[in-house]
Amino acid sequence: MADTAGEPGLSIDGSTSMDPRHAVLFEPLRVGPKTLPNRFYQVPHASGFGSSRPLTHAAFRGIKAEGGWGGVNVDYAPVSSDADETPAVASDCWDQEGMTALGLVVEAIHAHGSLAGIELNHGGAYAPNGESRHARIAPSQIGSFSLRGSLAKEMTLHDIRRVQKDFVRAAQRARDVGFDIVYLYGAHGYLVTQFLSPITNRRSDEYGGSLRNRARFQIETLQMMREAVGEDCAIATRVSADGGDELKGIEIDEMLEVISLVDPHVDLFDVNVGGWPQDSGTSRYFPEGSQQPWTSRVREATAKPIVGVGRFTNPDVMAAIVRSGKLDLIGAARPAIADPFLPTKIREGRLDEIRECTGSNLCILREETFNQVGCLQNATAGEEYRRGWHPEIFVRPADPSPAILVIGGGPAGMECAMVLGRRGYEAVHLVEQDPELGGKLKWTRKLPTLGDWGRVVDHRVIGLAKLKNVEVVLGRRLSTADVLNYGADLIVVATGSHWVTDGSQPGMLEPIAGYESALTPEQIMAGKRPPMGRVVVYDTDHYYVGPGIAELLAGEGYETHLVSTAPIISPVSDETLEGDMLRRHLRKLGVIFHTNVNVLGFDKTDVWGETEYGEEWNLAADGVVLVTQQVSEDSLFRDLTSNVEALTAAGISAVYCTGDAQAPQMPSEAVFAGHRLAREIDTEDPSFPLPWLRENGGTSRHDPRPRQPNP
Amino acid sequence: MADTAGEPGLSIDGSTSMDPRHAVLFEPLRVGPKTLPNRFYQVPHASGFGSSRPLTHAAFRGIKAEGGWGGVNVDYAPVSSDADETPAVASDCWDQEGMTALGLVVEAIHAHGSLAGIELNHGGAYAPNGESRHARIAPSQIGSFSLRGSLAKEMTLHDIRRVQKDFVRAAQRARDVGFDIVYLYGAHGYLVTQFLSPITNRRSDEYGGSLRNRARFQIETLQMMREAVGEDCAIATRVSADGGDELKGIEIDEMLEVISLVDPHVDLFDVNVGGWPQDSGTSRYFPEGSQQPWTSRVREATAKPIVGVGRFTNPDVMAAIVRSGKLDLIGAARPAIADPFLPTKIREGRLDEIRECTGSNLCILREETFNQVGCLQNATAGEEYRRGWHPEIFVRPADPSPAILVIGGGPAGMECAMVLGRRGYEAVHLVEQDPELGGKLKWTRKLPTLGDWGRVVDHRVIGLAKLKNVEVVLGRRLSTADVLNYGADLIVVATGSHWVTDGSQPGMLEPIAGYESALTPEQIMAGKRPPMGRVVVYDTDHYYVGPGIAELLAGEGYETHLVSTAPIISPVSDETLEGDMLRRHLRKLGVIFHTNVNVLGFDKTDVWGETEYGEEWNLAADGVVLVTQQVSEDSLFRDLTSNVEALTAAGISAVYCTGDAQAPQMPSEAVFAGHRLAREIDTEDPSFPLPWLRENGGTSRHDPRPRQPNP
Repeated sequence: MADTAGEPGLSIDGSTSMDPRHAVLFEPLRVGPKTLPNRFYQVPHASGFGSSRPLTHAAFRGIKAEGGWGGVNVDYAPVSSDADETPAVASDCWDQEGMTALGLVVEAIHAHGSLAGIELNHGGAYAPNGESRHARIAPSQIGSFSLRGSLAKEMTLHDIRRVQKDFVRAAQRARDVGFDIVYLYGAHGYLVTQFLSPITNRRSDEYGGSLRNRARFQIETLQMMREAVGEDCAIATRVSADGGDELKGIEIDEMLEVISLVDPHVDLFDVNVGGWPQDSGTSRYFPEGSQQPWTSRVREATAKPIVGVGRFTNPDVMAAIVRSGKLDLIGAARPAIADPFLPTKIREGRLDEIRECTGSNLCILREETFNQVGCLQNATAGEEYRRGWHPEIFVRPADPSPAILVIGGGPAGMECAMVLGRRGYEAVHLVEQDPELGGKLKWTRKLPTLGDWGRVVDHRVIGLAKLKNVEVVLGRRLSTADVLNYGADLIVVATGSHWVTDGSQPGMLEPIAGYESALTPEQIMAGKRPPMGRVVVYDTDHYYVGPGIAELLAGEGYETHLVSTAPIISPVSDETLEGDMLRRHLRKLGVIFHTNVNVLGFDKTDVWGETEYGEEWNLAADGVVLVTQQVSEDSLFRDLTSNVEALTAAGISAVYCTGDAQAPQMPSEAVFAGHRLAREIDTEDPSFPLPWLRENGGTSRHDPRPRQPNP
Repeated sequence: MADTAGEPGLSIDGSTSMDPRHAVLFEPLRVGPKTLPNRFYQVPHASGFGSSRPLTHAAFRGIKAEGGWGGVNVDYAPVSSDADETPAVASDCWDQEGMTALGLVVEAIHAHGSLAGIELNHGGAYAPNGESRHARIAPSQIGSFSLRGSLAKEMTLHDIRRVQKDFVRAAQRARDVGFDIVYLYGAHGYLVTQFLSPITNRRSDEYGGSLRNRARFQIETLQMMREAVGEDCAIATRVSADGGDELKGIEIDEMLEVISLVDPHVDLFDVNVGGWPQDSGTSRYFPEGSQQPWTSRVREATAKPIVGVGRFTNPDVMAAIVRSGKLDLIGAARPAIADPFLPTKIREGRLDEIRECTGSNLCILREETFNQVGCLQNATAGEEYRRGWHPEIFVRPADPSPAILVIGGGPAGMECAMVLGRRGYEAVHLVEQDPELGGKLKWTRKLPTLGDWGRVVDHRVIGLAKLKNVEVVLGRRLSTADVLNYGADLIVVATGSHWVTDGSQPGMLEPIAGYESALTPEQIMAGKRPPMGRVVVYDTDHYYVGPGIAELLAGEGYETHLVSTAPIISPVSDETLEGDMLRRHLRKLGVIFHTNVNVLGFDKTDVWGETEYGEEWNLAADGVVLVTQQVSEDSLFRDLTSNVEALTAAGISAVYCTGDAQAPQMPSEAVFAGHRLAREIDTEDPSFPLPWLRENGGTSRHDPRPRQPNP
């Protein structure tokens, strides 16, 4: 192990005492034949690693066990080859190859004394089957919203028996590689819920009709799994306590009946609310603990342990829930991504060091776009193996003496300075021109519904304040001469980006005619306003800024028209599961939508453009706000790097650029860029990232097995 | 090698003589230090295998060499880790690991005497960088249409040198694993074209401004690559002969000048036209050879060998082009996917056996949705390794004596019967109720622009006619009793699907009020019509049928309203690169679009519904066509399988269901399902597919290399 600047379990500033009110969270809990060491439970969630990238997966889950999560689950696990999740990546366990790979993840979880769980699943009509190309199967011939142009095959009794056998075999394989908790996935619209819901189950045999019949598949399968592995493993099932969008037809009272029916075969209930947009509710539309009204009723139906989620980051709330008996375990997916060491920090009373989940769902955006997990708050999420990054351990540089000046206190600059500080550089200065840290997030958090994004700033303001080797200088704007005279050895320019004033955009770099009379988002947030009346917000950015400005102006009484080049308002919000809510929310506030429109020009009374089909489009308007694209604020970087002699004379050995000053991106990528630079600032060419470890295929190269049916 | 029913190079019916007019296609061609054995050249195209699945990739490319393609290229190959194509899969070659994997593909290509090529690339502003999370780089700070919310970093001179060095290192590594042809990718809007275009290159240094300056990056890099590997490898470059959507600002005359400038450093020009939708033009909107007006001008600028594409499947056209001297090589991506043995079949005069590309772009749909390659015509594409399927070799069954009755002559039934025949089953009967084969494709090919999809039918009609062990019975509708009395041992039910009459759809299984007065696509194609006037085509299927019916009716004088639940008309067509053209085409014909609308009911004068925001929507209309969903025509299968005793009494050992009769899907998936069943009909449970070989990660397990900069 390299010499490290920080050790997990050691506070930045040394405090280590637990609030006694939180002790209840550290009581062990018996689940079936196993015992969880505490009440922190990382529920099953996708990472993009699954069985395809077992080493990356093992490190990602292992770090959670190390951080104190007493139960840690792997990615959802298809049990049949007609439940193939390609192009998404899952914990395939329909054969031994996938399960053997997952054994590596189990080892990593066990290494820290935690229990390892696996959520066995069949996607039914929702399985993409992108690699297998098998026909989907379901209780009845139904389709799914997202898989267009194809319906599922109605399962024969032969199919039902085969899938149940697949669940049992997968459970046995899971037990054999060491899993402690084995689930039957009964939520989120997958096969089990396709049986449960009378909307999707139209069978006339013993698996359709009455609730007991619709629950028969779940009851039988749990019973079979318990018989097969129940002495060695805890049997869990995930259920939806209320019908959300994807589970029409099952209300809470009916679901409580289902829970009673399966209760004899279950050791642990993992409960949540309906569809993904509610279950993974963002902070824009759902407060912490928003599922409580439903999940707290589950106790009426079972005396078994219950785990529930709700983006919990507040230990007082967590302890109160456990004490109330409504939940026995605090479940988390996103808060555990944002801070794998959340339990440890509570145990050691380091509450102000918790990297609180912002509820932005940028992690889910990465998964929805078939990328691997990432996090706005935690740049190390998913990088534990491939880049060797530990969230709480930082490699001390061979030479900690260079004085480093970081210019710009936005997300990238704050993160870079904090990581440099935690690595142990002896003199790090973070200089920000404004009187407060935060950069772009200073005004982003003031947009309606976006307050919790401010946690990115707050966490770093607190962390920076604790680092004695980092000095934060506020309200000072550095000129090129100031930088040269500052006395630093290394310079990091993190001066951010700004919205263009001229309406230029990707693919159309020319200004929009009449742009001089328009306002930018920054101008709006600084208090400037168009004349009261009708305002056009022109959005070619397609995420949160356009809708945020529109909501703000609509709330002030403007007749607000949100005009977008996209076919739908804010398509990026669909990838954070917010799209439908965002659009309905804006419509309720009276915002009027115009989609598929290119604005070509405007003046003080009119806006004109064309539709995607090349047809004319016009609208009278009193003012325009341009949300088209951001460009780097890189003049300082250009100035500095254009004069190598001056740098040499000033004793500056290198100037790096990071975050939006280098390339405007999502805030998560700015944090990542700043973090990466700080981790690698002592490599040969820090401006270009080190390669990461990959896990390519070809393992079968030396052992091409004959293809045969599942054993 | 197992006993096989068909050998490649042997005709189904024994004919083996080449038309002498095609001999020119089999003349060798010198390219730099290498010699191509003939004029058939599989140009670089994505497969979804890349360096991640090297064995699958090797088998996929190797089969093309085996089929007679003299030059075979692998997937596009990023040379730098800031040109990462994740979530797409590419031939990563920024380190030795990726290139070593690709060496397996080279071996497979060389095994058949063909040359192996690799298209080195940097995506610039178009690189998703989904795994690396690096900032993108480009000549200037530009964005891309498809990568929202982020712009590229403007490349410093340091970046330019680094990327050029990356190209050289990748070329050396490619040479070292045996590649014969090494490309610099200069088309399709990637980094080289970002330098070339004055729209995306706004630099004021020696890499921007004049054409010579904008071409400098390409010229220098080619020169450096040639110096490094030019004695061992042919140097190629891909150029766009005319600016399409993604290459604004470079017209043909300017491009000819670029070709002249780089000519001294190049052995082979791979030319095409502009953006993807033109270059991979579908048969709906582009005829065979549509690029000729542009690509045939390239000869004006160079005497070097030229390869061009144009969905060529007609050998007379190919031979005429080569004789004309406009192109030296017949390039192909899609036609080589549809028939890897196209060159062999031409050489042997088996022209009627060519599996002609339909130009549907369903292969591209799979890639656009991050799946691996697949083909409407060729079910074996991509399955060569993982399922062990050869397109022209069929494993003879241990017992060929069971008489097999295939009921239904649509895509699945035709394919199933043909593969059963080629496997050597002694008695296969294909019984179709209509007087012609084709199933759903019989009327699909009659929709405006969809004629070439009929090639799926034509190929199989011809192939079936040649198989003496297959009898095709037309115009006979079999009842359950007929089937029982037929005398068959095995039954395959492939009776297809039909459009629902009641407007039910995925997620809304209840009928739409008033549905009784509506027509279905089949009724329209059978000649029924709504009253002349205004017609609503209600499309919840989102692909080609709704727009096809709308175009047909608009052409007949109806005021046609295409109403869709999707935010855009025919979103699936965006994945086949047809969306923009399709929508503009329909708009020109006067079709009126209504998107984001749920139709709730209609009568003979009005249609009503709600928008996605829950607001009311109304339209007066004289008639409605419902294109909502298809359901299986499976009554015969249900009848047969419900009476096991009758089956036993009739001597029928098994009844299988395939294609749309099992689950309505894309036509490509129906062909695949029929093919799969025929390949596996003698396995233990033919109703459930055998697992396929995968290539999981974890190869680094025993050799966790320390991370260091690219060597």
